Amino acid sequence: MHFWGVFDGHAGSGAALMASKLLQLIIRDRLCDVAHLLENQNNPPPICLAKNGSPFQAEPRFHMEKDISVESLVMGIIETAFRQMDDLIEKEKESYSISGGCCALIVIHLLGKLYVANAGDSRAIIVRNNEVIPVSNEFTPESERQRLQYLGFLKPELLGNEFTHIEFPRRIQHSELGKKMLFRDHTMTGWAYKTIVEDDLKFPLIYGEGKKARVMATIGVTRGLGDHDLKVYNSNIHIKPFLSCCPEVKVYKISEHKHGSDDVLIMGSDGLWDVTTDRDVADAVSTFLSSREPNDPLRYTLAAQDLLMRSRGVLKERGWRLPNERLGSGDDITVFVIPLAGAELET
Amino acid sequence: MHFWGVFDGHAGSGAALMASKLLQLIIRDRLCDVAHLLENQNNPPPICLAKNGSPFQAEPRFHMEKDISVESLVMGIIETAFRQMDDLIEKEKESYSISGGCCALIVIHLLGKLYVANAGDSRAIIVRNNEVIPVSNEFTPESERQRLQYLGFLKPELLGNEFTHIEFPRRIQHSELGKKMLFRDHTMTGWAYKTIVEDDLKFPLIYGEGKKARVMATIGVTRGLGDHDLKVYNSNIHIKPFLSCCPEVKVYKISEHKHGSDDVLIMGSDGLWDVTTDRDVADAVSTFLSSREPNDPLRYTLAAQDLLMRSRGVLKERGWRLPNERLGSGDDITVFVIPLAGAELET
Repeated sequence: MHFWGVFDGHAGSGAALMASKLLQLIIRDRLCDVAHLLENQNNPPPICLAKNGSPFQAEPRFHMEKDISVESLVMGIIETAFRQMDDLIEKEKESYSISGGCCALIVIHLLGKLYVANAGDSRAIIVRNNEVIPVSNEFTPESERQRLQYLGFLKPELLGNEFTHIEFPRRIQHSELGKKMLFRDHTMTGWAYKTIVEDDLKFPLIYGEGKKARVMATIGVTRGLGDHDLKVYNSNIHIKPFLSCCPEVKVYKISEHKHGSDDVLIMGSDGLWDVTTDRDVADAVSTFLSSREPNDPLRYTLAAQDLLMRSRGVLKERGWRLPNERLGSGDDITVFVIPLAGAELET
Repeated sequence: MHFWGVFDGHAGSGAALMASKLLQLIIRDRLCDVAHLLENQNNPPPICLAKNGSPFQAEPRFHMEKDISVESLVMGIIETAFRQMDDLIEKEKESYSISGGCCALIVIHLLGKLYVANAGDSRAIIVRNNEVIPVSNEFTPESERQRLQYLGFLKPELLGNEFTHIEFPRRIQHSELGKKMLFRDHTMTGWAYKTIVEDDLKFPLIYGEGKKARVMATIGVTRGLGDHDLKVYNSNIHIKPFLSCCPEVKVYKISEHKHGSDDVLIMGSDGLWDVTTDRDVADAVSTFLSSREPNDPLRYTLAAQDLLMRSRGVLKERGWRLPNERLGSGDDITVFVIPLAGAELET
């Protein structure tokens, strides 16, 4: 098994550091527990296990029974490992200072497949034959609007009488009470008019657009680890209930494709993708790799450094600038460039 | 404006009949309210309206303000109209007997676009140049598993101490207490093992596969209108909280494509799609239409009848059989075949 992880911290480095050290161990332990069930990928894992881990066969009845694949089991193990990691951070915080929270993007290479698990706004893409293949989605106030609004609707006590789960295109002024304004709630993707009532004057749960969108005017990412103590500024309203520690897991069947020495998996924190598009990242890496010898052991590391330098930009009179004169990223940037050639042969 | 609707009732025809008569009027009234805002599709609708419906401009401040398109407004009007329709059924039930519930699939042709709104397990496809273009998704216990489990997790009182929101691959036997079984909850798409506790012996909120999947062992569709009184058999547990009356609205820009006389929109209830694939439906309609004169005014109606007869099958010794000898549909079937040619010119 191979493991890579990008842990992009915010409001302190404690959670990111702890997750970067422990998440891989949690996943490894959980995979070891079921290693004997993964050996033959065509044998579905048993539905029920005895306490010692061996398959347990209940008396057969005329039951409907779902077939579960080995792939689903690995996905479930990764999903539950993220939760265990998050619980562990919460528990350790009782005894130690573990500051902030972090986005977690990990990739596991196991049994001919890449499992890409993402909780946050980092991103992974595969560049194969100069084609971009996205293998993760970002989780932000905009992409998770309906989930967050649904929670605020079902559990209004979590909004602390300060926020409304309904979205409006802008803040409402007191003078607009009784007038009609465009709105959308957790059930809608379109917009309709509603008459403005007192409750609508509260601050919106989701507010702002693009990189400036925030949950409860505080955080711009909606999945990750940590943040157990995060509160709305100057209030007692906890934000953690709205954050999910559960990753979305996508599977790339590495053994079903041919990969050349310039075909790579690229993982990066949002600092990279904010200023450089998928296509530009792919082109930059392809151009860089084609300029180096295929057997240069440093070529992938140097490609990652090149990507980082491009996105940081160059210090000019008016700040750090990209080649196209736009502002470079002021955010932290983490990048991995991982070669895919030869991986078909490993397990 | 043109309007088509498929209302597939269950547990009585009351809700389906009422919705088939009133939903179009609700939508028409709501569109009339904003007709003056739709005239120029490039003018975004005003964010705030005075009580008389004219745009209201608050004192300008340095506010962030979202741009809302005319298309989003029409989508929002359709979404809120479904809710109003559902509320109306609930209200009328106080005075009249309105039995059962229904899936609702509607298509509206307005300003060069088709708005396809689906709440239930009916389906619409477009056949253009013999290519199948899906324009709706179905909402079933399987496709909405995570939404339903999330609600059961957040509001366990809705499960009435009879059901568990956790999914298992099969029913658990009492003798399996303390053993480990594969499970997944609302956060997971994969499966992992958990130790079975007493609570896991409850009946699963979602149970069964494919067409046999049910919510609370009762209903096989998770969106629609009506069903306000629906309860789990022999209990006081209401199912309506788990059902959504909100449609998913998809937009097809009819004016951006060329359509020939054999290009059609096909709407059908699940009775059609259960036995005939999208591809087979498209082929059957294309073959039928090409055998009739392009100016035959009955050709689309006859194509729909032909589709219906195919899916019903022929009565043989061993029941109603399709040409491929598989069982025909025993369900009600509703089909519309709607020509798209010429629609580019209308508004």
